[in-house]
Amino acid sequence: MPIQKPRTLSGFMELLPQKQVLFDAMVEKLRRTYALYGFSPLDTPVIEASEILLTKSGGETEKQIYRFTKGDSDLSLRFDLTVPLAKYVALHYNDLAFPFRRFQIGKVYRGERAQRGRFREFYQADIDVIGDGALDILNDAEMPAIIYRAFTSLGLERFVIRVNNRKLLNGFYAMLGWDHRAGDIMRVVDKAEKIGLEKVGLTLYHDLGLDEDSVGEIQEFMAIKGTNAQVLDALEGYRGRNEAFDQGLDELKTVCRYLADFGVPESHFAIDLSIARGLDYYTGTVYETRLLDYPEIGSPCSGGRYDNLAAYYTDKQLPGVGISIGLTRLFYVLDEQGLLNPDALTAPAEVLVLPMTEDLAPAVALATALREGGVTALLYHEGKKFKQKLSYADRLGIPFVALLGEDELAQGKVALKDMSSGEQQLLTAQEAAAYVTQALAARRAARPIQEKPQ
Amino acid sequence: MPIQKPRTLSGFMELLPQKQVLFDAMVEKLRRTYALYGFSPLDTPVIEASEILLTKSGGETEKQIYRFTKGDSDLSLRFDLTVPLAKYVALHYNDLAFPFRRFQIGKVYRGERAQRGRFREFYQADIDVIGDGALDILNDAEMPAIIYRAFTSLGLERFVIRVNNRKLLNGFYAMLGWDHRAGDIMRVVDKAEKIGLEKVGLTLYHDLGLDEDSVGEIQEFMAIKGTNAQVLDALEGYRGRNEAFDQGLDELKTVCRYLADFGVPESHFAIDLSIARGLDYYTGTVYETRLLDYPEIGSPCSGGRYDNLAAYYTDKQLPGVGISIGLTRLFYVLDEQGLLNPDALTAPAEVLVLPMTEDLAPAVALATALREGGVTALLYHEGKKFKQKLSYADRLGIPFVALLGEDELAQGKVALKDMSSGEQQLLTAQEAAAYVTQALAARRAARPIQEKPQ
Repeated sequence: MPIQKPRTLSGFMELLPQKQVLFDAMVEKLRRTYALYGFSPLDTPVIEASEILLTKSGGETEKQIYRFTKGDSDLSLRFDLTVPLAKYVALHYNDLAFPFRRFQIGKVYRGERAQRGRFREFYQADIDVIGDGALDILNDAEMPAIIYRAFTSLGLERFVIRVNNRKLLNGFYAMLGWDHRAGDIMRVVDKAEKIGLEKVGLTLYHDLGLDEDSVGEIQEFMAIKGTNAQVLDALEGYRGRNEAFDQGLDELKTVCRYLADFGVPESHFAIDLSIARGLDYYTGTVYETRLLDYPEIGSPCSGGRYDNLAAYYTDKQLPGVGISIGLTRLFYVLDEQGLLNPDALTAPAEVLVLPMTEDLAPAVALATALREGGVTALLYHEGKKFKQKLSYADRLGIPFVALLGEDELAQGKVALKDMSSGEQQLLTAQEAAAYVTQALAARRAARPIQEKPQ
Repeated sequence: MPIQKPRTLSGFMELLPQKQVLFDAMVEKLRRTYALYGFSPLDTPVIEASEILLTKSGGETEKQIYRFTKGDSDLSLRFDLTVPLAKYVALHYNDLAFPFRRFQIGKVYRGERAQRGRFREFYQADIDVIGDGALDILNDAEMPAIIYRAFTSLGLERFVIRVNNRKLLNGFYAMLGWDHRAGDIMRVVDKAEKIGLEKVGLTLYHDLGLDEDSVGEIQEFMAIKGTNAQVLDALEGYRGRNEAFDQGLDELKTVCRYLADFGVPESHFAIDLSIARGLDYYTGTVYETRLLDYPEIGSPCSGGRYDNLAAYYTDKQLPGVGISIGLTRLFYVLDEQGLLNPDALTAPAEVLVLPMTEDLAPAVALATALREGGVTALLYHEGKKFKQKLSYADRLGIPFVALLGEDELAQGKVALKDMSSGEQQLLTAQEAAAYVTQALAARRAARPIQEKPQ
């Protein structure tokens, strides 16, 4: 039989075991964080009927989607977790209690042009709160707290959550008489960080045809910087000229007001009037996140408030607010930057149990006792030389080796070898389990990411 | 805009939140069990190139597979986790240390005829140990221990792991001169439990054309029952007539020998000479599992030893042994049988925090303190009547409600209401976190499944 050269499709991440452990640790940290805030887990099919997924005739989405037929069925792979959520909420409306809070961490599919660091299959880690008819602004205020705790639980430290409000922006452009072009203006303004305010002004003037006064007003507005209190103060200067603006400002103030009580330090939060998020369905608060030392990642966690989640499937008004972490790309970039935490345990086991006697029973019993004690143990019994057995532990990064020869057996003990120091001690199985647990406590608790000191 | 009726494809499981919590708890129990035995997590793409997945021109597989083109690529969705493992091991051979032990819990796809309780998208939870050139039989002996711990961790009690050995079977049929028909005979004998030994005999005689003596010998062999020791004793009576048989018997004895040291009670393990597993690639030990009270589930966990995992991708000889749990179907049937544990916590949070003052800061701070204390807390602030707020907690099964009115605030405390007893007590935030943790300890530790006493 000719041999088929094995390969993995480009754009599909497939990790080696030690990195997979860290990826899974990130997923687990996010699950725990989301659960702390009262979100239920959700899992929806990867495949949906095409007429369900392709809710909008968005050209870009249509091109990227994996769509195919099976028998008579026109099927598509989900390209995000939001559309399946909308379907879920509409479909199971009567069985859900609102506000419905769910998290979902799963793979989504986009047939993008293959490109380094861009993935066609990638994980999103989403949370959303969906109200029935209405949804209190306190939910918007809680999101930065969740982002903050999620990111710190991963081990990230130097990041800022940036917040803005679309009502405020729309209201501001309405003040200038340009609300009919608000979308176009936002797309230009969104680039302020990259191209600078001057160039933003020129583009608004030449390409969008705004008058000089409006351009000046917009530049002035965009130049509002400072602490959150200073920015809010400056925004108060615009109050009373447009209802939407005033409402947006109130919402923004509420979001800022409880930050400290939510445990978010001021250092990790900033009002940023330039962000708008491209997606048309955001209608109020919008969020972006920036890693201070790795701006090239873009925004690894974004989201916002939307007025009506599931209009395509139901006439119920279901407003919501949510955020999404692009986990695969985040992991990829952090790994590229060498930020995976070398202290985190990534070995398949904490102890490698090596039987050294013909009767394997004592070694098997030892491995069983270690596991009962909550220690992960790998029983190794292959016909190899002793040195090769140790090098198996070394290669996998297994921190301890338990040796069970006749001498140890006679004493009812095990020789526990610390692979990093080379030290060896005689312990009972229970003592060994306790010792390993104690010795590895810090590494067990290590976060998957470790930012380097600047 | 006309409304698109929401639907989920038939054959695709989509759970309500409380059941999803239990499903996820099962996944988590399996992850922990697999990790205890030294298995690394693995995640491979759901989509692979078709030429990679369709390794054998198996008609059944071809028909069921989800296969499609995207641009120039001929793609398929994985239909199990074994073929992707074979690809992975061949592709990353130089980066892996052998034996390579991995677990993978993920979705697979088979376009089966839609049928109640049959799924087209379902989770498999697999472990495999892959050797390089050789793999010690001790790995086969460990599998029943992993199945036993995995099942008990889920909450299952009344089950039996059934084990056999293909070498033993092949050797036995060779003794009779029927090794060239061994596969056909096994397929008939496999039905012994259903149709009885007499009918097995008639089928072997009439349909397969075996002589009367051979049929008698096979019936006698299949009738070997008793304790493991008794069965092994009876099998010893056949020793010395065929090399493969003797080797299979030695392997089977080794698998049985360390059961007690592996922590597997004799009551949960049985040698069963009738099982053979349909898949052709098993070459030694084979495993099946039977839930005593729910035989209609079939075997929720099966597996075995194979000589050569990745022959399609590499000329390296990579023997392995593994098991697979069909998690979606298992969950579905256990749920149908009413075996989901009602004591397990399935609410989105342990405490519902209800602000009762205009300034939300104290309630936000309370929720933050509870979360710091490891308690899941849902902050609820919608414009509803008090009774409706409590019924939100009730409907979601949230066990505690924390009320924060002016009175409580004045005392620096919170009124913690136990929703099941209706009792209410005044506590500080720290006391409340500790109380909730203590009160819910048993429910937090509850296993997802609870078998009913027979």
